[in-house]
Amino acid sequence: MKIKGTFLDEISHDIPHQNWGRVEWDRDFSYMKQIGINTVILIRSGYRKWLTYPSDVLISKEKAYTPPVDLVQMFLELSEKHQMDFYFGLYDSGRYWVNGDFQQESDLNKHVIEEVWSKYGKMSAFKGWYISQECSRKTGAIIDMYRGLGEHCKAVSGNLTTLISPYIDGIKNISQYQKETSRDLGVSLKKHEQDWSEIFDGIKNAIDIVAFQDGHISFDELDDFLLVNKQMADKYGIRSWTNSETFDRDMPIKFLPIKWEKLLMKLKAAERVGMEQAITFEFSHFMSPQSAYLQAGHLYNRYKEYLNQLI
Amino acid sequence: MKIKGTFLDEISHDIPHQNWGRVEWDRDFSYMKQIGINTVILIRSGYRKWLTYPSDVLISKEKAYTPPVDLVQMFLELSEKHQMDFYFGLYDSGRYWVNGDFQQESDLNKHVIEEVWSKYGKMSAFKGWYISQECSRKTGAIIDMYRGLGEHCKAVSGNLTTLISPYIDGIKNISQYQKETSRDLGVSLKKHEQDWSEIFDGIKNAIDIVAFQDGHISFDELDDFLLVNKQMADKYGIRSWTNSETFDRDMPIKFLPIKWEKLLMKLKAAERVGMEQAITFEFSHFMSPQSAYLQAGHLYNRYKEYLNQLI
Amino acid sequence: MKIKGTFLDEISHDIPHQNWGRVEWDRDFSYMKQIGINTVILIRSGYRKWLTYPSDVLISKEKAYTPPVDLVQMFLELSEKHQMDFYFGLYDSGRYWVNGDFQQESDLNKHVIEEVWSKYGKMSAFKGWYISQECSRKTGAIIDMYRGLGEHCKAVSGNLTTLISPYIDGIKNISQYQKETSRDLGVSLKKHEQDWSEIFDGIKNAIDIVAFQDGHISFDELDDFLLVNKQMADKYGIRSWTNSETFDRDMPIKFLPIKWEKLLMKLKAAERVGMEQAITFEFSHFMSPQSAYLQAGHLYNRYKEYLNQLI
Repeated sequence: MKIKGTFLDEISHDIPHQNWGRVEWDRDFSYMKQIGINTVILIRSGYRKWLTYPSDVLISKEKAYTPPVDLVQMFLELSEKHQMDFYFGLYDSGRYWVNGDFQQESDLNKHVIEEVWSKYGKMSAFKGWYISQECSRKTGAIIDMYRGLGEHCKAVSGNLTTLISPYIDGIKNISQYQKETSRDLGVSLKKHEQDWSEIFDGIKNAIDIVAFQDGHISFDELDDFLLVNKQMADKYGIRSWTNSETFDRDMPIKFLPIKWEKLLMKLKAAERVGMEQAITFEFSHFMSPQSAYLQAGHLYNRYKEYLNQLI
Repeated sequence: MKIKGTFLDEISHDIPHQNWGRVEWDRDFSYMKQIGINTVILIRSGYRKWLTYPSDVLISKEKAYTPPVDLVQMFLELSEKHQMDFYFGLYDSGRYWVNGDFQQESDLNKHVIEEVWSKYGKMSAFKGWYISQECSRKTGAIIDMYRGLGEHCKAVSGNLTTLISPYIDGIKNISQYQKETSRDLGVSLKKHEQDWSEIFDGIKNAIDIVAFQDGHISFDELDDFLLVNKQMADKYGIRSWTNSETFDRDMPIKFLPIKWEKLLMKLKAAERVGMEQAITFEFSHFMSPQSAYLQAGHLYNRYKEYLNQLI
Repeated sequence: MKIKGTFLDEISHDIPHQNWGRVEWDRDFSYMKQIGINTVILIRSGYRKWLTYPSDVLISKEKAYTPPVDLVQMFLELSEKHQMDFYFGLYDSGRYWVNGDFQQESDLNKHVIEEVWSKYGKMSAFKGWYISQECSRKTGAIIDMYRGLGEHCKAVSGNLTTLISPYIDGIKNISQYQKETSRDLGVSLKKHEQDWSEIFDGIKNAIDIVAFQDGHISFDELDDFLLVNKQMADKYGIRSWTNSETFDRDMPIKFLPIKWEKLLMKLKAAERVGMEQAITFEFSHFMSPQSAYLQAGHLYNRYKEYLNQLI
């Protein structure tokens, strides 16, 4: 099981920013490429008022701040240079869908999709869309939102690939603003399967790939949950990637790079159930040789040793 | 808007220590100088029992610990070498003024002021005093304390410049020991103006410069609060600097360097309202190329690019 | 007072992993040796399902995970290479003794002791045992557990040295998962003495060395507690080391390297009461020049300057 893609954590939600310029990003794409990563996924194009590109839509409608740099343009250019596929992450209002009003989130994002496609659609690295609204349960009108947004992405862009990356409502589904790292009860396997079977059934024609995050459950539960995820996706004709998180959810400092042994266990579990490939959240903080967290560079080296063993 | 000064976070209250010796501090002053910083402000000369210099007053009266190094002497020498202005931050007992007994805090500090002036007053870099007791509201006898201490500093030292750096009781006024990063309600602009008009009126002859911290309010509130701060200070004849914090208050890890975009927004807001200059809390952890937080070095580079654009 | 030993924090409980391979560990042992460290103590050989070596006992009985690397073998080889004494830390189930069932913890560890001795007992660096179950009070059957495990270690290994490292139930005995860094009340000196006199009396023939952790009390209490610890240990014929923690318990980020001044104060307090030597938790994160926390390298340099002054 190889890591073939990574999120780009801009706009970051909860991971302190590294303050990289183009030189550092260029170098990071090289580091990614050297270990076989061929896909970069913008985690979100905007969060509340913070934007990755100067969006007329969001600056006018949401009074968002004009960003000093057009990161979408830069990431697309670097993707072309390094021959990577770029997936564009939709806008996350941080409010229109969290409290139930999914319609407003969808409507706004449809304008974003159109704007983005007209601005950047010509660039050859633009290969897919990431529906950035993360969920773990069949909440409110989540099916309608995923389907509506997925269909709109496809309609606008000539059927480019669409991706979601939900999480499991497991024992480690704990706010990063709480000090605890786990809780007593998570969702049962059965309830998880029930919820996601319904969701997959509703979105199967709009979403091509699902990449469940693998960090919210205990290591003992990995095989059970990953197997169910794979089987459900297969049943509804959705491709399965695993989003193998490279940060450690078990530590008081939220968050630093994961211990290699844990990442290895998660990759092997994904392999056992037949996932197509792994992606990760995310390379640049938690796995890059130039990360501000020096543990990340060592993780990179451990992963390279693992790759060499696979050959 | 340029950053012309930085606090020196010794004694640190809540930011882990970097364990630098003279060589590292010397190098850091060079880095500061290279981006135009000409003023260093000791955040406090002591906190509870921890001291920056071997103070007979505090060792005898407060049973403070004798420090292994005389940091005040060292900072003054490095300031002379690098042609920086040094501001001495008063002692913070951590108890005599927090719970209301402002008199004891003032009396103690008057002894400190005299001791310090007699020890270090001859050094050419000694250019000002920083009244280190931070507040956000018209609490207790805060006016008497600021005025009394400011006047004593001036009387003892031949009218050297005096500085305070209060904070706004905004939505991000959250203890660093709590995991949350914001709260629902902050002080209203009107109440803030009321409190600080009274305070400024009371301290106008004793305090020369006010440098409000800019990190406790939302980015949407920057212009309103900074404008009021500037107008009030103008009205009472107090000079206005902005204390543009270089750490990020929005992240679970408390605290790492701020995202450049945020710092840029705050500097521009200060420029719009006509602040004289910026200072920051603080260079050595959050902006220095040799900081233990590598994000800081990248922030330094982004800031240098901004400086180059200003020319 | 010199630091002559360090824990090896594998399996880590709460400190994020550095992801080092053999090359980095080899280099770290060199760094240790350069400042006079001659003893390395494995903090625990396993914690819950995570193991440092492929233990048939724990894999079968506890369904523990087979580790990708045999760290015990590696640490023993590096200890031989660098002429260090290696102490093996027992298994911590994280459950059998915390909730009272001390017997199960003891029984399991007796199997571990036998397994480990048969696997690694021939290696010349294997010099002692560390009973890894940390406690601060006379809880449950703690005496029986310490004595039973200490005796078994000795019986199996031809009377190798046994070590414990308890903590003081002081004002900084706060969960690393809480944001607070201190509480109002800690154990009284008298109660601490009462508890530990009883414990020492019960374990005096099974445990050779006690190394109390020095970080849970205020700096003002250091002399009182360290003196009592030394006197009690002397009375019962147990040798006294001090476990001088090199991480800072007073900061919101849990945990980064300690300020040198604080470590110096603790070492001097240990010297005043006549401790035999210091060990630390732990070198590789908090004091190593190659630590991911760069403050650690500066602490290393400050400590080297101190060593040079001692000569």
